[in-house]
Amino acid sequence: MTIKPLEGIKVLDFTNVLAGPTCTMLLANMGAEIIKLERPGCGDDSRAYGPHINGESVYFTSVNRGKKSVVCNTKTEAGRQVFLKLVEKVDVVIENIKPGGMVRMGFDYETLKKINPRMIYVSISGFGNTGPWALRPCYDMIVQAMGGIMSITGEPGGSPVRVGTSIGDVMGGTYAAMGTLGALYQRAVTGLGQKVDISLLDCQVAILENAVARYSSTGFIPGPLGMRHALITPFEGFKTKDRVLIIAAGNDNLFTRLCRVIGLPELCSDERFLTNASRTDHVDELRELLEARLADKTADEWMEILQAEDIPCSPINTIDKLFENPQLAARHMLVEVDQPGIGKVSVAGNPIKYSTVPAEEEIPHGPAPSVGQHTREILVDLLGYTSDDADAYLKEFMR
Amino acid sequence: MTIKPLEGIKVLDFTNVLAGPTCTMLLANMGAEIIKLERPGCGDDSRAYGPHINGESVYFTSVNRGKKSVVCNTKTEAGRQVFLKLVEKVDVVIENIKPGGMVRMGFDYETLKKINPRMIYVSISGFGNTGPWALRPCYDMIVQAMGGIMSITGEPGGSPVRVGTSIGDVMGGTYAAMGTLGALYQRAVTGLGQKVDISLLDCQVAILENAVARYSSTGFIPGPLGMRHALITPFEGFKTKDRVLIIAAGNDNLFTRLCRVIGLPELCSDERFLTNASRTDHVDELRELLEARLADKTADEWMEILQAEDIPCSPINTIDKLFENPQLAARHMLVEVDQPGIGKVSVAGNPIKYSTVPAEEEIPHGPAPSVGQHTREILVDLLGYTSDDADAYLKEFMR
Repeated sequence: MTIKPLEGIKVLDFTNVLAGPTCTMLLANMGAEIIKLERPGCGDDSRAYGPHINGESVYFTSVNRGKKSVVCNTKTEAGRQVFLKLVEKVDVVIENIKPGGMVRMGFDYETLKKINPRMIYVSISGFGNTGPWALRPCYDMIVQAMGGIMSITGEPGGSPVRVGTSIGDVMGGTYAAMGTLGALYQRAVTGLGQKVDISLLDCQVAILENAVARYSSTGFIPGPLGMRHALITPFEGFKTKDRVLIIAAGNDNLFTRLCRVIGLPELCSDERFLTNASRTDHVDELRELLEARLADKTADEWMEILQAEDIPCSPINTIDKLFENPQLAARHMLVEVDQPGIGKVSVAGNPIKYSTVPAEEEIPHGPAPSVGQHTREILVDLLGYTSDDADAYLKEFMR
Repeated sequence: MTIKPLEGIKVLDFTNVLAGPTCTMLLANMGAEIIKLERPGCGDDSRAYGPHINGESVYFTSVNRGKKSVVCNTKTEAGRQVFLKLVEKVDVVIENIKPGGMVRMGFDYETLKKINPRMIYVSISGFGNTGPWALRPCYDMIVQAMGGIMSITGEPGGSPVRVGTSIGDVMGGTYAAMGTLGALYQRAVTGLGQKVDISLLDCQVAILENAVARYSSTGFIPGPLGMRHALITPFEGFKTKDRVLIIAAGNDNLFTRLCRVIGLPELCSDERFLTNASRTDHVDELRELLEARLADKTADEWMEILQAEDIPCSPINTIDKLFENPQLAARHMLVEVDQPGIGKVSVAGNPIKYSTVPAEEEIPHGPAPSVGQHTREILVDLLGYTSDDADAYLKEFMR
C-alpha cells in the first residue's frame, strides 16, 4: 500500500477562490485530508466562476478535486462550535479570508493556539499580516502590477501584460504549502506548532530572480523583451516558413552546432558572435541572419533537424497541444476527474514525483465536493457528534 | 536563539545555473546548510552571466547567497571520493545536471541509496527522469513555449511573449524544494529516504490553473488577453490622464463602489453591467466608458480616491519602485547582502514568514561563496580529512 508523505495529516481549509485552495490542493496531492469549510448556499466564491456545465463550475473543480466540504456559517453559534472543534482535531488551519476577518471572529492564531498548540496556522493575504498595508484588500491582478512582474512581461516598447495565469495567487498558494511543510517538519522534531504568514505581494517579488539584484547593483531598470531572454543569445522565437520556433542555444557549443546544422557555419567565426556577451550585444543582427535562413523550411522541418543535434527547440504550444504531448502523457501530467454534472474533466497532475508513490495515485482523483457534502461524515466520525446532533446541524444549514 | 525549520539539515547541492540553485536557496532560507559542489576554475555556469562588477556575477550572487562551495571534479578519483563521502553525511542530494549524467557517473539514486538509505535524492531536469523525452536537453525558454504559458501571455492578437522572469526554472526549483520538504517530513515519521523526480515541463503545466480544465471541458483554446483577466470584469489596466492604472473590482459590491466614486453611478443599473458575467460579455464597452471618465485625473489622483473606498488598484511598478514600497520594506522583502567585489547588493527576501523566525534572520545574509571557498572546512570538519589530505586535495584543484 502506498503511503504518501502527508498521510494522516488533517487540514482545516478556511479558504476561498484561488490562492488558498491552491495551497490545500498541493497538500492534498501529498496525501493530506482537506476539510474545506463552505458557507451555506453558494459556498466558495469560485463556484460562481465560469465556465459552468449543468450548473457546475469547471474552475472550482480544477482546484478542489478530492477535498471534503463541510457547511459552516461562523456567524452562528453552531457554526463557531464546529469551527473550534475542528481546530482541536486538525494539524493545520489555513485561511485566506479578508484581512482582519480572523481577528474579528476571534479565530486569530493567538486565540486558536490555546486550543491546539501543535497546530500550524497558515494565513494567506494580499499584503501579509504585518506592515502598514496589512488590512488593504487585494487581488492577483494588483500584486502582478505592484510586484514588478508585469513591467518585465510584454512586447519591447509595448504595454506591460499580465502573466496569462494568475501567478500571484498561484505563487501565494505554493509558498504557503511550502511554509506548511517546513513547519510540519519542525513540529515532527520539536512537537510545536507555529504561524506561517504569506503575502501575495512578497511572493511576487520572490520570483523576480536576477531583476532585483541587477537593478540594485547597476541601476538599470529592466523592461519587457517579448520572447527574448535578457542575458542569453540566441534564446528566443524565430520566424520560419510557417510559424514561430523557439530556439534556445544557451552556450557556445550549442551556438556552433546550430550555425553548422542550418548551413551558416561562417557565423561561428564572425567577431560579433564569438561569445554569449557579444551575441547579446548584437542580438538584432544575429536574429536577422538566422531568420533569413530559417524562412527556408517550416518549424516542423527545422525541429527534426535541430533535435537530431540535441539543440533545444520548441513550437509555442497552445493549451490543446498539451493533450498530444507524449512526454506529458508518460508523466501523467493531465489527469481525468469524473465530476458529477460535468463529466470527465482534465486537470493538471502532480509535478512532484515521489519514488514511493505510483503515478496513478499522485493526485486525488475524487471529484470536487458539493457544498457541505461531507458535513455529516466529519461531524459524526471526526468530531463525535451524535447522529441527531448532526441532523440538527444539517437542518439549520442545508435548507 | 532562533531555530529555523531545517536547522541541522545538510544538503549536497550538485546543481547549476537557476532551477537547482533556486531549490537550494529556498531550503537555505529555512535553515538548511547548503554544500555546493563546483567544478575547478569557472565553477557554476551562471558565474559567467552578466552583469559583472569587479569580475563578480550579480546573477550568481542573487541565487547563491549564504551557501558553501566545495571544489570538486568528479572525473578524478579524489573528486569522486569527496562526492561519495558527502553523500554519506548529508540528508539531501540535489542535482540538475545534464540528463543521463548521474547514471553515467554511477551517482544515480539506486547506487547512492546503498551508501545512505535515509538520503533524499532530488533530480531536476527539463523533462523528468521517465518518459520518451527523459534524455532531451532543455532550457527554461523551451518549457515556457512547450508548456502553454506563452500562448496565453501577451497582447490580444499579438505574438505570445515570455514571462519576464524565468518562470520555468523558478517553478522547477520551487516544486523541488516542496518535494524535498514532503520527503523530509515523511522521513521524520518513517526513517526512510526516497527519490523526488522533477520535470520543468511538468511544473509549467501545473501552474496553468483553470486553462487546462477549461479547454478540456469546453474545447475553447485560451489566448493572450493583454492586461485583462479572462473571467472577471472590470479587472485590468485603464488609461488615466498620465499612465495606466490597474483596477480590480472583482465582485458586484466593488463594481458598485467604483462606479459611484468615479461619478458614473448609472453604470450600476445598466443592464449590460449587472453581473460579472454580463460585464465580461461587454468588457470593451465598459472599458471605453470607464476610460472616458478616468482620463480626467492622473493615476495618483485616482488611486487616492479609490483606496479611500477600499477598491483594489495599483500602478504598474517597474523594479526600481519596489525599493520605495513601504509594505515591502516592513516585510523585509528586499535584503542587502555584502558581496566581496560587488559591495552591497539587494536580493529578494523570504516570502515564507514563520512566527518563530525573526524578520532579520529570514534569509542567510552571508555572501555567495567564491569557487571552492569552503573546501578545507568541509573536508576537515565534516568528512574527517587530515589537514595534509585536505592540502593535497586543494593543491590538485585550486591551482
